[in-house]
Amino acid sequence: MSEPIPTEAQAAQTQNAAPAAASTGSTAPAPTAEGEAAGPTKGELKRRAKEAEKAKKAAERAAREEEERKKREAKEAQDNAKQNYGKLPLHQSQERNNRKFLKFGELSEASVGQRVIFRARMHNSRAQGAKIVFLNFRQQTHTLQGVLVVSGDNDENQVSKQMLKFSQLIPSESIVLVEGVIKSAEVKSCTITDYEVGINKLFTAVEVGELPFSIDDASRAEADFEKAEQDENLQYSRVALPTRLDNRVMDLRTPTNQAIFRVQSAVGQLFRDYLNSQGFIEIHSPKLQGAATESGASVFKVQYFNGTAFLAQSPQLAKQMAIAGDMERVYEIGPVFRAEDSNTHRHMTEFMGLDLEMAFEEHYHEVLEVLDEMLKNIFKGLQQGFKHEIEVIKKQFPHEDFLFLDETLKLPFKEGIKMLKEAGAKASDGSELGELDDLSTENEKFLGRLVREKYQTDYFILDKFPLAIRPFYTMPDPVDPTLSNSYDFFMRGEEILSGAQRVHDPAFLVERMKSVGIDPATMTGYLDAFKLGAPPHAGGGIGLERVVMLFLKLGNIRRASLFPRDPKRLTP
Amino acid sequence: MSEPIPTEAQAAQTQNAAPAAASTGSTAPAPTAEGEAAGPTKGELKRRAKEAEKAKKAAERAAREEEERKKREAKEAQDNAKQNYGKLPLHQSQERNNRKFLKFGELSEASVGQRVIFRARMHNSRAQGAKIVFLNFRQQTHTLQGVLVVSGDNDENQVSKQMLKFSQLIPSESIVLVEGVIKSAEVKSCTITDYEVGINKLFTAVEVGELPFSIDDASRAEADFEKAEQDENLQYSRVALPTRLDNRVMDLRTPTNQAIFRVQSAVGQLFRDYLNSQGFIEIHSPKLQGAATESGASVFKVQYFNGTAFLAQSPQLAKQMAIAGDMERVYEIGPVFRAEDSNTHRHMTEFMGLDLEMAFEEHYHEVLEVLDEMLKNIFKGLQQGFKHEIEVIKKQFPHEDFLFLDETLKLPFKEGIKMLKEAGAKASDGSELGELDDLSTENEKFLGRLVREKYQTDYFILDKFPLAIRPFYTMPDPVDPTLSNSYDFFMRGEEILSGAQRVHDPAFLVERMKSVGIDPATMTGYLDAFKLGAPPHAGGGIGLERVVMLFLKLGNIRRASLFPRDPKRLTP
Repeated sequence: MSEPIPTEAQAAQTQNAAPAAASTGSTAPAPTAEGEAAGPTKGELKRRAKEAEKAKKAAERAAREEEERKKREAKEAQDNAKQNYGKLPLHQSQERNNRKFLKFGELSEASVGQRVIFRARMHNSRAQGAKIVFLNFRQQTHTLQGVLVVSGDNDENQVSKQMLKFSQLIPSESIVLVEGVIKSAEVKSCTITDYEVGINKLFTAVEVGELPFSIDDASRAEADFEKAEQDENLQYSRVALPTRLDNRVMDLRTPTNQAIFRVQSAVGQLFRDYLNSQGFIEIHSPKLQGAATESGASVFKVQYFNGTAFLAQSPQLAKQMAIAGDMERVYEIGPVFRAEDSNTHRHMTEFMGLDLEMAFEEHYHEVLEVLDEMLKNIFKGLQQGFKHEIEVIKKQFPHEDFLFLDETLKLPFKEGIKMLKEAGAKASDGSELGELDDLSTENEKFLGRLVREKYQTDYFILDKFPLAIRPFYTMPDPVDPTLSNSYDFFMRGEEILSGAQRVHDPAFLVERMKSVGIDPATMTGYLDAFKLGAPPHAGGGIGLERVVMLFLKLGNIRRASLFPRDPKRLTP
Repeated sequence: MSEPIPTEAQAAQTQNAAPAAASTGSTAPAPTAEGEAAGPTKGELKRRAKEAEKAKKAAERAAREEEERKKREAKEAQDNAKQNYGKLPLHQSQERNNRKFLKFGELSEASVGQRVIFRARMHNSRAQGAKIVFLNFRQQTHTLQGVLVVSGDNDENQVSKQMLKFSQLIPSESIVLVEGVIKSAEVKSCTITDYEVGINKLFTAVEVGELPFSIDDASRAEADFEKAEQDENLQYSRVALPTRLDNRVMDLRTPTNQAIFRVQSAVGQLFRDYLNSQGFIEIHSPKLQGAATESGASVFKVQYFNGTAFLAQSPQLAKQMAIAGDMERVYEIGPVFRAEDSNTHRHMTEFMGLDLEMAFEEHYHEVLEVLDEMLKNIFKGLQQGFKHEIEVIKKQFPHEDFLFLDETLKLPFKEGIKMLKEAGAKASDGSELGELDDLSTENEKFLGRLVREKYQTDYFILDKFPLAIRPFYTMPDPVDPTLSNSYDFFMRGEEILSGAQRVHDPAFLVERMKSVGIDPATMTGYLDAFKLGAPPHAGGGIGLERVVMLFLKLGNIRRASLFPRDPKRLTP
C-alpha cells in the first residue's frame, strides 16, 4: 500500500535521483561536429570501440547503481514502523480495551519510565537535524514535549523516517493519539518542564484544516506585543476580541480561557456550597413571563403561541414569591435578560444571575452578612483551590491578587460620599456631590481606589443607600425616611451585587408604588403574593461574569462569558 | 389605650349588662291605665311611697351592681398581659438583639424546659373551655402545638383573657412571633408529637386576609377524599391543580410542596456533586440564539432590537462547541424552551435541562456509564438524605419506593422490542412491532412494567436505538448501519434521559444531514465548530422536573415545577 500523500523524504529522493541520471548521461556518446563527411580511420574505430566499451561499463555501472538505489528505496519503503503511525478511521466506538489515558496534569516522578497512552492536540513541532522531531502536545492548560527519534532496524519500537515526516505534516490543532514512555527532562518550551514523552506510536484521530489564528498568538499578553515592537525578530499577530468571539471554539482552547472557565465554574460551586451550608435551597423560576417584571423599556418580547410573553429581567418577583411561599432561604443561578442597547465593557444582553432571597428575623443585616460571608467564601475558595488557573490567567492578564479583609469594610453611603468629597470628587455635571445623589461609574471607581488606599481592600460594602435612587420595593430606613435598608457590594471599584430589604406589606407596597408614579393596578400579580403574607425578607443579585471579570481583572465582561450576547452579537 | 377590635369577652359582657338593666327596669315605676282621672287615695299614696322606697333600694342595688361591674371590667381591662401580645409594627429592621430563633426541625429532648422564640405561620387554633387555647404553628414541613392558658394575676408570665381572645382571632396563615417554654407532651394534631410550647408571648408580625383555600384542604391525599365520600361527617374541599397553580404562593406552603422543592433542589446538587467528582465543569450557554438550533417548528421567536432571535431548545450545540473548545467534560443546568402546543401531564414549554457532554477515549459506553452512575448517585442521595421529605410527600402522593439495581440493567433496543412482542404488544396502529420502529408512550410504559416484573427495577437503560429514529448528529453503529450509538434512560416506564455519541467529523456530518434532508448550508454555524476539530464525544440531557415527578410519582409534571409554564399558562 502506498502513502496517499508522498512524504518529503520520498520527494527528496526523487530529486536526488534525477541529477544522478543527468550526470551519467553527460558521459554517454554524443555526435561531434567534426569529420561527419569522412569515413572512420582505424585509430578512430579503435577510439570508438574504446568509447563503446567505456559506455557499456558506464551503463553497467548506472544499472548497478540504479539497482542499488531501488534496493535502498525498497528497503526504505518497507517501513517497519507502518503500524506505529497514520490516520485512524472515524471513531465509532469500534472497540474498548479499558486502557487508562494519561492526563498531563497527573504527571509526577512516579510516571518516569512508564509507558503511557494519551490523546492531545498537536500544538506545534520542530525538527532537530534529520532524525529528531520535537512535538508539543496540548491538553487544556498543559503542554508536554514529545520526542520522536528515528531508530535502527532492530529497535523494538520502530520509528522510521517516514513516521518522522508524517509527524511533521500533522496540522496544528489536530487531535492525536500517542503512545510512549515518560522520561525526565529539562524542557523550556512547554508548561511541563520536568518530563517529556519518548514517542513510540503516533496517530491522528481528527485532522484539522485552516485555522483562524494560532493558539500562541491568542495567548499573548499585552506586554509581549510591546516587547515585539522593540524587537524586529519578533513578529506577533494580535487577535482582536471580535475575531476571538467569532471563532470562539478556537479561542476557548487557549490555556487562559481553559483557566477562566474553570474559575467561572468554581464561582458557582462556591456560591452554592456556602448557601447550602446555611440552609438555602436552589430554585428555578421561569424565564418566560406573562408581564414585564420590572421596567417595560428593557424587556425582550417573545411570540408565545397567539400571544406575547416577556423574558425575565431578574428572578426578583419569583424569589420573593418563594419566600411568601415559606421557602425561607432560596437561591437561583439562571440567565437574566436585558434588552438594553448598551455597548460597554461590562454590559451584556444575557448574563448569569446569582440571586438569593432570605427571610430574616431581626434585621436585614442578617442577610447582608450571609451575602458577605458567601462572597468571602468565593474569594478564599478561588485563591486556595485555583492557584494554577489564576497563574495561567495572569500570564496573559497580569494583575495584583484580589485583596479582601477578614472583617469586611461596611461603609454607610454617606460616609462614601464624604470620602469622595474630601478627595475632591464632583458629580458628572461638575457640581458638588450631594449626600443623596447616585454615584456615577467614575466616582464608584474613584471610591474603590480611595478605599483600597485607606483600608487595603478591593472589596467592600456600601450600606444605607438613599431611598430615592432605589427601586420602589426597597424598605425605607426606620429612622431616616430619605435612606433605605439597601446595599451594594463592590469589587475593584465596580458594583457586583445590589440588594435590599424588600417591602413585604402589601398596603405599604401600594403606597410606595404610588409615590414613585407606578400604577398599582399594573402590578396586581406582584401584590397578590404579599396579600397572602410574606415574612420580612431581603436579598441580592450578583452578576457571575462581573465577579469573574473583576476578580481576574479581565477588562471586558465578554472574556468571562462562554458565548457572550450583546446588542450586536447573537452568534456563535 | 383601648383595643381597636373589641374582644369577644368584652362583647359578651356588654350583652350580659343589657338584660340586667332591663330586668332592673321592670321593677321601676310605670304609668298604669287605671285611675288616671281620679286623685290618689291615702292607701294609694302609701302604696306609692312603699314602691318608691322599693325602687330606691332597687336603684341603689343596681348602682352598686353597676359599680361592681365597672370595677370588675376595669380590673379586667387593666390587662396585665398587654405587653405579651398584639400586632407588631411594620418590620423595618428597627433593632437587633441577636436572639436565636427556633426552627421546629431542631427540637429534641434537650429543648425541654428551654425558653424559646420563634416565627411561624398560624396554622389553626381551637379553644378548650374558657381558659385554654391550642394553637398550631407551622414552619415548612413541621407543625408544633402551642398552649395558651389564662394565668393568675401574680403569674410572672401573665396570660390574660384578652390575650386568649386575641390569639383566637388571629387569621390563619398570619405570621406570628412566639415566645414560650418547650414541654414534653403527647400531641396528635401536629407533625411534632413529643413536644409542645407553653406560650408566654404572642405577636402577629404579618396579618393575612382572605385565603383562596386552606393548607389542610390542599394537603389531602386522594384516599382522604374517598374516605370522606363514605363518611358524612367529613366535609373536604378538593383543590384542583389549576386553582393551586393560580395561587401558587399559597399552594407552595403545603408540607408536600415544601418537601417536593427540597427534593428538586437536591436532584440538582446530587447531579453536580457526582459530575464535579468526575472532573466536569459547569458551563452556562446563551438562551438567545441567532438561529433556530434544532427544529424550526418548536422554537420561540424573540424580538431582538431590530432583528429576531430564538430561544434555545437545548444546549446541544453549545455543549458540543465547548467540547470542540477542549473543555473535555461539561454540564449545564438551565432552562430549555419548547414552543410545542402539547397539553399533557408531562410537557411544559419551559423546563430545566440537566445536560452533559463528555469527550471519551475508547467507547461511548464510558459516557453512558458516567450518566448511569450519576443517576444512581441521585437516587441513593435522595433515599438516604431525604427520608423525611419523601415520607411527607407520600402522605399526599402514596407510592412504592423507587427501585433500582446496583448494576443497572442495560437492554439493547432490539431486546426491548422482543420483550414487548412476547408480551403481545402492538404498534399504535395495531400492526406488529418492528425491530426498528420507535416506541409509543404506551409501549414505553408497558416495557417499564415488564422490566419491573422480570428484573425488579424501576430504572433501566435502552441502548442501540435504530439510527432512523434519532437526530442526524447521532453516530451510527460501527457494524450495523441501521443502528446507532444512542440510548434512553427510563424511570417508572417514562424516558427521562436521551443521549448518544455525536458525529464529530464535519464531512460525515454533512453526509448525515443530506441523508435526512437537511441542507448543510443552513447549518454552517454547527459545522464550523467541527471543522476546527472535535474529539469523539457523547452526552445526554435530563428533564429535572421529570426525574422529580417520576421518582415521587406525582402524576403531573407541573407539581414538580415551581411556577410551571405550558401553552395556556404564563403566570404567576
